[in-house]
Amino acid sequence: MHAALPQDRFFAWPELNGGAIDIALVATHPRGTFARLPNLKLVQSMWMGVETLVDDPELPRHVPLARLIDPGMVHAMAETVLAHLLDWHRHHYYYRRMQREARWSRLEQVLPSDRTVGLLGLGELGSYAAERLLALGFNVCGWSRRPKALPGVKCTTDVDELLARSQAVVCLLPLTPQTRGILNARAFARMPRGGCVVNVARGAHLVVQDLVAALDSGQLAHAYLDVFDPEPLPPESPLWAHPGVTVTPHIAALNDPRTSIPKIVENVERVRRGEAPRHLVDFSAGY
Amino acid sequence: MHAALPQDRFFAWPELNGGAIDIALVATHPRGTFARLPNLKLVQSMWMGVETLVDDPELPRHVPLARLIDPGMVHAMAETVLAHLLDWHRHHYYYRRMQREARWSRLEQVLPSDRTVGLLGLGELGSYAAERLLALGFNVCGWSRRPKALPGVKCTTDVDELLARSQAVVCLLPLTPQTRGILNARAFARMPRGGCVVNVARGAHLVVQDLVAALDSGQLAHAYLDVFDPEPLPPESPLWAHPGVTVTPHIAALNDPRTSIPKIVENVERVRRGEAPRHLVDFSAGY
Repeated sequence: MHAALPQDRFFAWPELNGGAIDIALVATHPRGTFARLPNLKLVQSMWMGVETLVDDPELPRHVPLARLIDPGMVHAMAETVLAHLLDWHRHHYYYRRMQREARWSRLEQVLPSDRTVGLLGLGELGSYAAERLLALGFNVCGWSRRPKALPGVKCTTDVDELLARSQAVVCLLPLTPQTRGILNARAFARMPRGGCVVNVARGAHLVVQDLVAALDSGQLAHAYLDVFDPEPLPPESPLWAHPGVTVTPHIAALNDPRTSIPKIVENVERVRRGEAPRHLVDFSAGY
Repeated sequence: MHAALPQDRFFAWPELNGGAIDIALVATHPRGTFARLPNLKLVQSMWMGVETLVDDPELPRHVPLARLIDPGMVHAMAETVLAHLLDWHRHHYYYRRMQREARWSRLEQVLPSDRTVGLLGLGELGSYAAERLLALGFNVCGWSRRPKALPGVKCTTDVDELLARSQAVVCLLPLTPQTRGILNARAFARMPRGGCVVNVARGAHLVVQDLVAALDSGQLAHAYLDVFDPEPLPPESPLWAHPGVTVTPHIAALNDPRTSIPKIVENVERVRRGEAPRHLVDFSAGY
């Protein structure tokens, strides 16, 4: 970062020379941080999800807050979504259970054109994942708060319509009061029986006890969970040992400095030139 | 099949009306079959791999033998190859081990452009898998007996060159005397340390004890095996319980009647019109 912005001085928390700082690059931050930074022109998140910033009452609302849209992270998320959906589509989660019992047992092969994948969220992550899924021959349905149109994707603003169509549901939503707990018993009941759920957004999107009940009843065949509330997932969580759950430690998409630093530099330079930074958060929407 | 060829009469083994039969559709066949079929104009395999037919000394060599190239199967194989390679690339095999221990432990994310996938075999299966892998940003290297050129693929006829470049090696070869046992200790030793092997061709391509030794020493990180010698994999095989092996029951790519029947019908109609059938086996090459 220093090499990419050689004209700038950098201060690392907690040694903040508050008055001299006009741009804050924030991954996680302790309360009290913003009171020490009176001259900000930009708060640049180091993550795509900004709920901890938006939820901080000390965050100055008159300062632009920007999300980090790292193309490497968007690509990584699509890789992860494809990895989990192909694992489900090719029944690999089932064959792993059979392997543990040394059982040679086949399920019928399904064509991707016989599957519909439902994406909750059609922002940068959802749109790119949709493209990759369409290229493999899956039907893709997408839900967003505002009406959208994406080539080849059945877009809807009616979440119940998406759930009823989708054998697999992938959550890529920002966490807001409207989306908290969206993966719940009512949602699972609307899906076709025997489907799968992928949560790569935030842990609080999912009601864990509802998921466990849906897996135990066979309403869902498998769940791929990368995010939890709280993190790290505590050792006593029933999710670790559940045969219907694949747990990964919030690694679906990590920042890559090679692709994220140029995006941060771009926003810093826009602010220096007096231009509006990119990917600003809409506080009324919460992301 | 009857509906697709309404003019034809069908005989199911063992009730063969030998003299009337000019086309044999063969999945698996008992010895003695061909002695009862003196008037064949075509032996159409129901599989892509024809080693059990080629190895049958009773197979009439003057009758054209055709492989079944089912586009649905080619697509299914690419799905399986992608599923396993993304599982490896995103470290999901590692996270499953961590899940069994309820451990929250991350590995570093790798860009696909930092990986090279080596494909052994650049026929219909290899070429299509190469396209899909390139679309995801992987470097792709391919080995074939005869020189080939495929857009974006580093093609070679030197298997050692491919092994030295490839963090992941995928076997998609026909089984011939030249390829039997190609996945052996010498091959694994030439690969960069910590790579993975995917065998979706035939069990006899792999030397099992060499694989286990390479996994146990850490030379290989993981193996994805769909094919075995013999099949089904016997319950006493050490592969079932090895933590570095994913076992699937020869399901990487199954025939789909919706895509395979039109290909069989095409060859039957070509023979009826006196034209050469497609995808003929070259007996000197063994496939």
